[in-house]
Amino acid sequence: MAMEKEFHIFGFAGSLRKRSLNRAILAAASELLPEGAKLEIFDLEGIPPFNQDLEKQPPDRVREFKAKIRAADALLIATPEYNYSVPGVLKNAIDWASRPYGDNAFEGKPVALMGASVGTLGTARAQYHLRQTFVFLDMHPLNRPEVMVPSAHEKTDREGKVTDPTTREKIKELLASLVAWTGRLGKPG
Amino acid sequence: MAMEKEFHIFGFAGSLRKRSLNRAILAAASELLPEGAKLEIFDLEGIPPFNQDLEKQPPDRVREFKAKIRAADALLIATPEYNYSVPGVLKNAIDWASRPYGDNAFEGKPVALMGASVGTLGTARAQYHLRQTFVFLDMHPLNRPEVMVPSAHEKTDREGKVTDPTTREKIKELLASLVAWTGRLGKPG
Amino acid sequence: MAMEKEFHIFGFAGSLRKRSLNRAILAAASELLPEGAKLEIFDLEGIPPFNQDLEKQPPDRVREFKAKIRAADALLIATPEYNYSVPGVLKNAIDWASRPYGDNAFEGKPVALMGASVGTLGTARAQYHLRQTFVFLDMHPLNRPEVMVPSAHEKTDREGKVTDPTTREKIKELLASLVAWTGRLGKPG
Amino acid sequence: MAMEKEFHIFGFAGSLRKRSLNRAILAAASELLPEGAKLEIFDLEGIPPFNQDLEKQPPDRVREFKAKIRAADALLIATPEYNYSVPGVLKNAIDWASRPYGDNAFEGKPVALMGASVGTLGTARAQYHLRQTFVFLDMHPLNRPEVMVPSAHEKTDREGKVTDPTTREKIKELLASLVAWTGRLGKPG
Repeated sequence: MAMEKEFHIFGFAGSLRKRSLNRAILAAASELLPEGAKLEIFDLEGIPPFNQDLEKQPPDRVREFKAKIRAADALLIATPEYNYSVPGVLKNAIDWASRPYGDNAFEGKPVALMGASVGTLGTARAQYHLRQTFVFLDMHPLNRPEVMVPSAHEKTDREGKVTDPTTREKIKELLASLVAWTGRLGKPG
Repeated sequence: MAMEKEFHIFGFAGSLRKRSLNRAILAAASELLPEGAKLEIFDLEGIPPFNQDLEKQPPDRVREFKAKIRAADALLIATPEYNYSVPGVLKNAIDWASRPYGDNAFEGKPVALMGASVGTLGTARAQYHLRQTFVFLDMHPLNRPEVMVPSAHEKTDREGKVTDPTTREKIKELLASLVAWTGRLGKPG
Repeated sequence: MAMEKEFHIFGFAGSLRKRSLNRAILAAASELLPEGAKLEIFDLEGIPPFNQDLEKQPPDRVREFKAKIRAADALLIATPEYNYSVPGVLKNAIDWASRPYGDNAFEGKPVALMGASVGTLGTARAQYHLRQTFVFLDMHPLNRPEVMVPSAHEKTDREGKVTDPTTREKIKELLASLVAWTGRLGKPG
Repeated sequence: MAMEKEFHIFGFAGSLRKRSLNRAILAAASELLPEGAKLEIFDLEGIPPFNQDLEKQPPDRVREFKAKIRAADALLIATPEYNYSVPGVLKNAIDWASRPYGDNAFEGKPVALMGASVGTLGTARAQYHLRQTFVFLDMHPLNRPEVMVPSAHEKTDREGKVTDPTTREKIKELLASLVAWTGRLGKPG
């Protein structure tokens, strides 16, 4: 796919932990982009708990988050799984960016999902809950590949770099598919 | 069911909004308790975004939340539905109280769910996601009744009091069923 | 959207009952098509329980079902909700048509969902389970509108014709959106 | 737990395939029962597609299935995962046994879930969908252990016997937990 301009992916991980495995796979994504694409990573630190009474005067950090979502060609979300679902921290950021009514920053965005866990399911349960949220947000998630990284602590080195070749290959495939999927969707007619 | 001592229900609503419909149904529950039961309501205000790096030194508000969960005979959760799932604010509080590993405050607790929404489904989607979370937390949710209150803004008065008789009856039934279910479960052997 | 050729929608309802509410909304869809579109309705009667030992020699009725899925520009599924999920009869037909490995008839198909129920949720729970199945099948479901018809027995007349104007308008909108969505997706590049 | 009488578990697998991995783990369960418990295995072969028009005159095979469910102290379900959800064949049998209205054979039954797959998730997605169905059926599923057997074809020998010690240990733990959970639930008061 020949691109006239740079393809802009906006990514965030659903964890505030410094050495988060999901920050690690997001960092790996930066190194695995197709030609012509760039990835901007956003840190959810500083987004407070959502309060609907304040949704019309959101904190600056939320305004910035929403503006960056809007400016992107596509989104990339790296989700941990907490308690068999989406981390509250991630869902909270999504809740802010979807509000107030009529000002949903996610509207129509193509999105790719990935997730890393210490356990064996690789965040599958969190990912399917997020996919249900995407229906309401009117987002367009990639079907394939699904990037679920189990035993992720064994796939990173001491500096938190993803070293496992299979995982790296999968992330690379995800990014290429996201660019192709976005191109296929084009603009709403 | 004759109770030797008071039955203690601990409840919280997944919204920080002052005039939240879910705070309203929780307040209504206080008036609809079976004899011998009391309901303590906790406000999730003040619980910051979860950060796993800090889970071993949680904020005081989280310690208090966990202690109250542990002390209760049963839990009552009033959940809004945001973006077809559990509000981030509610999930975030649950994430804090389930951690660190080995210190899950919810372990073994009977729980009843209810939810109010402006829309037509009455938080059904959020409730089923919460039920999946309860599997991991090893909680024991009531199957019935399911209290899903659609068009909830039409069922409360200006002061936010739940006035709809059917809704009040349903909440009353939920509370009586929670007491009976807790009695049936008894203590783990 | 000007169409050079007729747009072919293939539809089926997940019920074998003669006076099924979901057959009724599917029949209504036939009357609410955008110009240039036609709807062919298939009856799941005659599709036996799936047995993987027989998947390479499927019954004729299954072969016919798969061929019609493949020939269609888009699919329309009317799902009942049984026991808070997809009816076995509907899921069984989907299982047949997705097999054997490498011969998934649903691959890449745009699809619209609707459902009618006697109860208050209008098959919401079944629809979200189906959406999860669509991820594996690599289908592309419409996000909006979601057509969930509660109290559907009150929206049909004695002959089973859908008479409720709001329901008819919603189905019309669904079909127009399905044609537009299919056009937007175009062909995989 | 001392039992006055034999504890009767009724089990079925959601596959008609002769050499099904889920039939295999169910057969393994027969060898791993706690003292005083027996497991009766039922084959879903012969249960036709559900048709609500016939629900009041169900086939004999369905009558037999329902009678055995009712007679059991607890249930054990071995589910494959087809297309990221419950196999149609399994859901169809459940649909029959839950009907007609007011004659749900599953009402109040304790149940344990397990599942085996060739893939990496071990039927997780099917199991959570089944758990949602159990809410409607008013069943009481075990929370733990969750028995999800990935790469199950590597854990059985040529005769289809489960040879993997970890899998066997897990199934044994599941059965012991099911007996304890049933004892804890006692009879509805």
